[in-house]
Amino acid sequence: MIRSRDNEQLKTIRKLRQKRWRERLDLFVAEGEDLVEAAAAAGWEPEILLRAPADVDPELLAEASGLGSGARAIGVYRPRWSAAGGSLSLELHDVHDPGNVGTAIRSAHAFCDGPVMLGPGCADPFSPKAVRASMGSIFARPPARGRARARRIALVPYAGRTLAEVAVEPPLVLLLGGERRGLPAGLDADEVVRIPLREGGPESLNVAMAATVALYELGTRMAAHG
Amino acid sequence: MIRSRDNEQLKTIRKLRQKRWRERLDLFVAEGEDLVEAAAAAGWEPEILLRAPADVDPELLAEASGLGSGARAIGVYRPRWSAAGGSLSLELHDVHDPGNVGTAIRSAHAFCDGPVMLGPGCADPFSPKAVRASMGSIFARPPARGRARARRIALVPYAGRTLAEVAVEPPLVLLLGGERRGLPAGLDADEVVRIPLREGGPESLNVAMAATVALYELGTRMAAHG
Repeated sequence: MIRSRDNEQLKTIRKLRQKRWRERLDLFVAEGEDLVEAAAAAGWEPEILLRAPADVDPELLAEASGLGSGARAIGVYRPRWSAAGGSLSLELHDVHDPGNVGTAIRSAHAFCDGPVMLGPGCADPFSPKAVRASMGSIFARPPARGRARARRIALVPYAGRTLAEVAVEPPLVLLLGGERRGLPAGLDADEVVRIPLREGGPESLNVAMAATVALYELGTRMAAHG
Repeated sequence: MIRSRDNEQLKTIRKLRQKRWRERLDLFVAEGEDLVEAAAAAGWEPEILLRAPADVDPELLAEASGLGSGARAIGVYRPRWSAAGGSLSLELHDVHDPGNVGTAIRSAHAFCDGPVMLGPGCADPFSPKAVRASMGSIFARPPARGRARARRIALVPYAGRTLAEVAVEPPLVLLLGGERRGLPAGLDADEVVRIPLREGGPESLNVAMAATVALYELGTRMAAHG
């Protein structure tokens, strides 16, 4: 039973709020019973697992949390990466918001067989916020680096055919850019597509919603075509 | 030029972080130039509008922010509500997270002609987080209370036909429940539908993602038939 905030495991958990410590220790944190269960279900062994009140004073665990979530369980894990590939996957560029990165990881897990590939400028997918937003999909479908060999479809707000008009012959990679700047130049897209938004409606969706809609549309059509 | 944190306008802005003050004063805050512009574009006159550094010391404005966003503009507005209705709208129940409420308001603005109706247990749509998540759609398409006369389709994780199988004769209301508990009993749904998720994938999406996918599917099909 841990009763001191100077405990080494709690110190490690607190350090892992910071990206430089996640990189140095090659570890990350999942906060909350749901995430710890998702890790176990996906076959990940924790390096550290603390449950309150069994292992640790609940207030000390809450204080170690990076999310201020009052989590009753915190697990520490070693990052893993998927290989790029799949019949449908998602490639993100300059997505700075960790919640958007985590949500995209959830959506890829829901709608396609490939991982989320993280291009330059993306938030750390193993940050506490991204892990939480993934709702555990970070364990079932870890993100990837590198680039898949596939037809490259760039999703932009305003140009190209609508998603429903895109042919879904696999393999496909959906390219999506950051919150403000959109896709960087030089991505070698084979096609540019858009989500049809109502006239008089907003000019764009946020990145996570756009990714979710696009993977739903392409993934369900691809599944229907067999 | 405001140079004191005791300024009455700054005091009001700080108070409006709290729901009880928003209710008592019947006012809410939009933080950031994008949101202030979205309000103006939708024809909303601010009760207070402070821009840094023109009107106020930037540090004082940042300190008044409820989001810690370092906003360079903060506007204060009087809430408005839409009437329930439209050929497609969304009704939320027990959606506690203000980010999910705001994102749903954005998605309704993007994909349907009706507002988001807020049932019991939903987060305040005029909280700073919800307003930000709406990306300004709170001004273009304010939420509604009450109930629309329409065919009622309940979106649940696991039962019913898929969204693509639903007939889209208007008017339709999509019903969606909270993060944990799903839809409460007694909602008088005419039909139960689900979003098809991959085998081996997650059991559910978060509320904002589910709302966005469902409104996209139903809204674009309704537009194509209409």
